[in-house]
Amino acid sequence: MLSIQPYKGARDFYPEDKRIQKYMFNVLRSVVEQYGYEEYDSPVLESLDLYKAKSGQEIVNEQTYNFVDRGGRSVAIRPEMTPSVSRMVAGRRQELAYPARWYSIPNLWRYERPQKGRLREHWQLNVDVFGIESEHAEVELIQIADSIFRTFGASPDQYAIKVNSRKFVDYLFHDFFKLNKESAHKVIKLVDRMHKLETIKFESSLREIIAESKLESVVADEIITILKVKNIEYLPLPVRAHESLISLESLMNHLKNIGITNCFFDISLMRGFDYYTDIVFEVFDTNPENKRSIMGGGRYDGLVGLFGVNPVATVGFGLGDVVLLDFLNTHGLLPKIEVETDVYLIVLGNNFTYASGVASDLRKQGVNVAVDSSGKKVGQLIKNALKKKIPYVIFIGDNEASNKKIVLRRLADNHETEEEVSSASKEILDNKQ
Amino acid sequence: MLSIQPYKGARDFYPEDKRIQKYMFNVLRSVVEQYGYEEYDSPVLESLDLYKAKSGQEIVNEQTYNFVDRGGRSVAIRPEMTPSVSRMVAGRRQELAYPARWYSIPNLWRYERPQKGRLREHWQLNVDVFGIESEHAEVELIQIADSIFRTFGASPDQYAIKVNSRKFVDYLFHDFFKLNKESAHKVIKLVDRMHKLETIKFESSLREIIAESKLESVVADEIITILKVKNIEYLPLPVRAHESLISLESLMNHLKNIGITNCFFDISLMRGFDYYTDIVFEVFDTNPENKRSIMGGGRYDGLVGLFGVNPVATVGFGLGDVVLLDFLNTHGLLPKIEVETDVYLIVLGNNFTYASGVASDLRKQGVNVAVDSSGKKVGQLIKNALKKKIPYVIFIGDNEASNKKIVLRRLADNHETEEEVSSASKEILDNKQ
Repeated sequence: MLSIQPYKGARDFYPEDKRIQKYMFNVLRSVVEQYGYEEYDSPVLESLDLYKAKSGQEIVNEQTYNFVDRGGRSVAIRPEMTPSVSRMVAGRRQELAYPARWYSIPNLWRYERPQKGRLREHWQLNVDVFGIESEHAEVELIQIADSIFRTFGASPDQYAIKVNSRKFVDYLFHDFFKLNKESAHKVIKLVDRMHKLETIKFESSLREIIAESKLESVVADEIITILKVKNIEYLPLPVRAHESLISLESLMNHLKNIGITNCFFDISLMRGFDYYTDIVFEVFDTNPENKRSIMGGGRYDGLVGLFGVNPVATVGFGLGDVVLLDFLNTHGLLPKIEVETDVYLIVLGNNFTYASGVASDLRKQGVNVAVDSSGKKVGQLIKNALKKKIPYVIFIGDNEASNKKIVLRRLADNHETEEEVSSASKEILDNKQ
Repeated sequence: MLSIQPYKGARDFYPEDKRIQKYMFNVLRSVVEQYGYEEYDSPVLESLDLYKAKSGQEIVNEQTYNFVDRGGRSVAIRPEMTPSVSRMVAGRRQELAYPARWYSIPNLWRYERPQKGRLREHWQLNVDVFGIESEHAEVELIQIADSIFRTFGASPDQYAIKVNSRKFVDYLFHDFFKLNKESAHKVIKLVDRMHKLETIKFESSLREIIAESKLESVVADEIITILKVKNIEYLPLPVRAHESLISLESLMNHLKNIGITNCFFDISLMRGFDYYTDIVFEVFDTNPENKRSIMGGGRYDGLVGLFGVNPVATVGFGLGDVVLLDFLNTHGLLPKIEVETDVYLIVLGNNFTYASGVASDLRKQGVNVAVDSSGKKVGQLIKNALKKKIPYVIFIGDNEASNKKIVLRRLADNHETEEEVSSASKEILDNKQ
């Protein structure tokens, strides 16, 4: 016997689930289109090479769905969209008009243990702007993220925007603390996971790396101290003056000027992907029940150049549907979502042909009509309409067919009237707005 | 160096391609929702067993993308949606209110040689109604298909709706011509491909099967003759009286009564899938340049029952995006599709902060604004806006920033005015409708 379960870590979307997803995606689309972004898409299968080039190695080796096709090609089900969009921009590097503003809401697959907020299949809004070298790109993308949360009805205390600089992180570990390349990489990976580890575990791992790289143990103490700094102004002076921090402060001032008050410096923000080159940012839920990253992104100026064309300045972010839905649920922000069907038209007796004509007339006027000609008991049929959350029922029996009228019942209060088709459709459409 | 090509047989959707797809999908969604259908979705990966159970064997063996995941499960990238939707209905067999009307527009993958109208990845509208045993289900689904073509602007002479009955086909070859099970299956598969074969090749293959099954060669002649019949009335009398044809005629009369005049009996219509149990139908492009099946479906009452629950009466169809787009292009039915962005806002000098405020105000009023603060030459920036097909440009320089106005240029005729933000947004929105 076949299983009724979907594939592990993936979701079936029954109509009531799909309606919620559609509501979420409609909000996302409307906000990014306000900023002039255009939707694109690409195949869910890509060459595996695309991810080997610049994603974190962990993702390709352990977390990617990949296989060899019948033609001997190594292919992957896309785990992220950034390599695909970079490939597409590279394919039209000369023809495009910059800045090019693009977005997509692809489904992505990662092979990992399903858990709260992390599934094997999820959808992710990807927003990218190509061709802006100035911080105006970062300002715009963070502003879009902020607009998205506000449009969903969130208040600024319900989410925090965290920013950091990969240039600063590189300077800090390579130049300031003098770690060699390998050790710096290990420390960065460790800091990336620091909020998931117990403090004692984090600190002992850090001390191990420092010892391995033959540096004095005081370096580990200094790193631990500096990671606790919450404000750029409180960083020690020689670090404080680095140009990457000047840029970061300028960005934060810019955001303050346009009314974004919940943006904070976070020295521990690393972002998992290796391709980021400068400023990185994330949005976190501030609710202690759901302390997750909901959106993350940054500048990755090098990726398009991997396809043998001139590189192009790029800033982008991704926002996942699973974490977004958790956020909306946690804060009670999901509205009641109406069904698309307006009327359940019940055919009594042998009047299917007349009823079909009435249904066609209603549809022409913009009313969505589901016809039931099953001949079941009326009580059962009304239960069906209620179960489907359809607001109106129309009855058509012998009387209605002969006098060319219909009986309209509003299910909210069982108010029932005999009407012409045109006046019924007016009531239904008025009620919809 | 990484390739800029998408995976073989799959498409990148640049924004201008995606807009066309979105237009098509919006039409499809609006029509099926008029009939009370609700959207659902399911994962793109499914257990391979799902397809082994009831799809044509060719599809599973030769055409399915499948692999073994890291947990040892045999999985497939879905080649069709019918098994998934059957699984989902089975999963809520008791809770659902029938008739349940569901639709989806999934992407599907088949491993085959890419050719005109057939790609490895395509999207397919799937429309299914569960729980209607009467022909009202077939009437409704064919009516929906017809509404879709009419809503795209097609006239009834541009497409033909063909119907046949699998019960009739089974009766014809098993009972009337007395072929054994294996030979009948071979003949049905051959007839399914008959319009792709030369007549002489088709007839010789048929004669071979008849000879193999130890029937007289006159049976082959009779089959060839009967396959030429275009009208139920002209079938030989003993065949003509079979109950499956009575049902088929009743359906065709019903369709005629609701104004569908381009529906024809086609004895050679078989549909590839093994799961159909009764009436089958397809829509064909009548243009000789593009004689393809655009939509196909039928009744498959048995599939939900394979999941260990009570079977449920089901009629469904699929309509692919690649063949639909070919149809719309062949008949010149694709309208000019406007871009979503209304204004290209050009920032002159050091006025990014003021310009950001103007952009925010415009967005609040429903205007979609792309900001350009690149500082490039104005001529180049206007070229960019034209390339992106954005209808308006707004200029904000020192003058505008100091007197709190903007300069609005309509690119269609280069009409330019200095305005308040509110009057500019009014003109832009009026122009949009």
